[in-house]
Amino acid sequence: MELSTPKGTRDFSPEEKIVRDKLVNTLKEVFELYGYAPLETPILERFDVLASKYAGGTEILKETFKLKDQGNRDLGLRYDLTVPMCRYIAMNPTIKMPFKRYQIGEVFRDGPVASARYRQFTQCDVDVIGSSSMSIDTEIIALIYAAFCKFNFEVVIKVNNRKLLNEILDYCGVEKNKQEAIILSIDKLEKLGINVVKNELREQKIDDKKISTILDIMNIKGNNQQKISQLKKILKNSDGLDEIEQLLGYLKNINFEADFDVSLARGLAYYTGTVIETFLKSSSVKSSVCAGGRYDNMIDSFLGKSNYPAVGVSFGVDRIYDAIAEKQKTKQKTTTQIYVIPIKTLNESMKIAQQLRDAGINTDIDSMERGPSKNLEYANSLGIPYVIFVGKKELQENKVKLRDMKTGKEELLNLKDAIKILAKHV
Amino acid sequence: MELSTPKGTRDFSPEEKIVRDKLVNTLKEVFELYGYAPLETPILERFDVLASKYAGGTEILKETFKLKDQGNRDLGLRYDLTVPMCRYIAMNPTIKMPFKRYQIGEVFRDGPVASARYRQFTQCDVDVIGSSSMSIDTEIIALIYAAFCKFNFEVVIKVNNRKLLNEILDYCGVEKNKQEAIILSIDKLEKLGINVVKNELREQKIDDKKISTILDIMNIKGNNQQKISQLKKILKNSDGLDEIEQLLGYLKNINFEADFDVSLARGLAYYTGTVIETFLKSSSVKSSVCAGGRYDNMIDSFLGKSNYPAVGVSFGVDRIYDAIAEKQKTKQKTTTQIYVIPIKTLNESMKIAQQLRDAGINTDIDSMERGPSKNLEYANSLGIPYVIFVGKKELQENKVKLRDMKTGKEELLNLKDAIKILAKHV
Repeated sequence: MELSTPKGTRDFSPEEKIVRDKLVNTLKEVFELYGYAPLETPILERFDVLASKYAGGTEILKETFKLKDQGNRDLGLRYDLTVPMCRYIAMNPTIKMPFKRYQIGEVFRDGPVASARYRQFTQCDVDVIGSSSMSIDTEIIALIYAAFCKFNFEVVIKVNNRKLLNEILDYCGVEKNKQEAIILSIDKLEKLGINVVKNELREQKIDDKKISTILDIMNIKGNNQQKISQLKKILKNSDGLDEIEQLLGYLKNINFEADFDVSLARGLAYYTGTVIETFLKSSSVKSSVCAGGRYDNMIDSFLGKSNYPAVGVSFGVDRIYDAIAEKQKTKQKTTTQIYVIPIKTLNESMKIAQQLRDAGINTDIDSMERGPSKNLEYANSLGIPYVIFVGKKELQENKVKLRDMKTGKEELLNLKDAIKILAKHV
Repeated sequence: MELSTPKGTRDFSPEEKIVRDKLVNTLKEVFELYGYAPLETPILERFDVLASKYAGGTEILKETFKLKDQGNRDLGLRYDLTVPMCRYIAMNPTIKMPFKRYQIGEVFRDGPVASARYRQFTQCDVDVIGSSSMSIDTEIIALIYAAFCKFNFEVVIKVNNRKLLNEILDYCGVEKNKQEAIILSIDKLEKLGINVVKNELREQKIDDKKISTILDIMNIKGNNQQKISQLKKILKNSDGLDEIEQLLGYLKNINFEADFDVSLARGLAYYTGTVIETFLKSSSVKSSVCAGGRYDNMIDSFLGKSNYPAVGVSFGVDRIYDAIAEKQKTKQKTTTQIYVIPIKTLNESMKIAQQLRDAGINTDIDSMERGPSKNLEYANSLGIPYVIFVGKKELQENKVKLRDMKTGKEELLNLKDAIKILAKHV
């Protein structure tokens, strides 16, 4: 038997898991600071729910892990957290609106395993259901800034508006039924370049004159105000532009800003207004680390009801993890703060370990009866910052020997004083 | 399409998830206090790993959700966290021993859905691999006390030893090859009563005289020391009894104790020494909430290597959750601490909400432009403890109106003073 994880999945060692836990906890703190409540849904969903035509679509369904239970019911592993949220809202009609929820959990896609594409990965969604106010779009952008600030990352947040893109395509004379496909092509501008996009538009039977008008508009330069002025001259009345102006105004009001990017489209069909993408300023992680937007029709279509406007973003936990890991100087293999080394004093050492734990200090103790040098090696290999030697002679004087593993400095202290020092430094 | 969760699975509403998150975080804190590091493994495992003959066994394999990836590979949803840990150790031969790890995650069993038996549930394991010292068995019991103390539960921890059970069966003249089955029967004594167990032993062809000797010994009464004395008279030399004495001695050394229960067996075949079960003292949850023991051969057999003695326990997250939920007087539907109600002052109110969040106070704000009474109703329905009214008149005086939702008391304050009050009370 070959012992390995399934293709496209991976273990997280203690060293990695400590960082991931801290990352997830920080995100949770920020979400709750902004008034969002946690939700948990099962990893298994009924296959018919995942396959609903208003859910992820046929492309994503091809990548859905399918299975049966003992009652021969068709199930699937969830491929996102949005479909489960829609199901949850449908099943709980008394939820108070607006419903502000976040969910962090594993999702599964049985796709090709490219570089850094996993079949199991962590999804982290923040959404508001039931409010169409632009103040919510604003709040979500403030929340993104707050989260990355906690990770000490500077970010650029790009915004655009789907209504505006449709209005631009109207202006360029693109038929309504072609606009969705064109927008998905435009989304590739930055990634694949102008020529690829030109070819895609030609394949969609857009004539060269229209293509050049579209691309000229996409290429409008300047600061936010200059871009808005230029677009106003072209479009005259534009709901999308009004929304962008409102969003940027609200952001300014609370001392934030965003980069208005006319060519930002986001590769998903269901957005209806604001779209958002976030990039790290100085990191080798170049892809978007948090993205989303407003999707005012999706839940309504899914539930066959009305009045569920929605806006939300997904944080790319795995990418943020990569960016944090590359900045880390020292890796922590444990959260243990002190390691107790008994020197033929196991009973007394166990007492001391217990007192350290009672004082709230993360404590480990040798249980292998190894010698001091082997024990120091063990503590060092895990990066534990302090050790305490408990020898018989020291115990007679009611003392222990505290060693700072970084400096090598050793001090003979009574336990209370050692605890005081540890409480300060760890 | 019927919108429901798959059979045997469930959603956790914000109200439930807030409690579960707190529970899990508290457990994590205690585990780290005792020097355990977190590990994460995928939910998907290769089916052949799950089916290894040293893994969970055929009974559990019948309940394993099986699926295939697009490469037609056989996969399964993990049914516990022990098999993945064994695989992880095998794949990472440079791990320092002892390896003290905890893991909290979802596991899946496609079994019959009885009362409170779920097909997806949370497993929470704490294990030490690589040390056969009884000081570790002791530490794990101290850790169990520490965890339940944090939840304000008094517990009874019962301990026994598998070696002792084998020695008792030797003494009673039960053949070695029958002992495993007899031990699993004895495990049912408390649950199913003496007659069921008697019948099971008869079915296993144990004669009535032996059965009565076995049951007499299982029925030995008294405090720990009295039980040990009586058993010593019967068994003369007993490794199991020596281990129990050592365990109870170590526990006393650090001011803990446990109830020695000769009939405690634990329903799993792989235990080799100490077995542990934990019960809540005053709760309607009567089943064990944390159990485990020493399994010194299992990882060796699984890996075909030697020197991986192990001891660990599982915390029953779902049962502990039930016990906490029944004690709760008020349910929190949100972690939001204050709700900002703009009265035709959205811009200023957004600024105030931002300042509250910058001060670390979990803040929500109305985005629906509802009137004050509808907003109070909303804040009340979520159990948010404070609201702030932001009216034009108050703003002119540089003030806001803070309302304590419990008492109904309202105060006109400047924002800084309001923040000071909130920081104290929330």
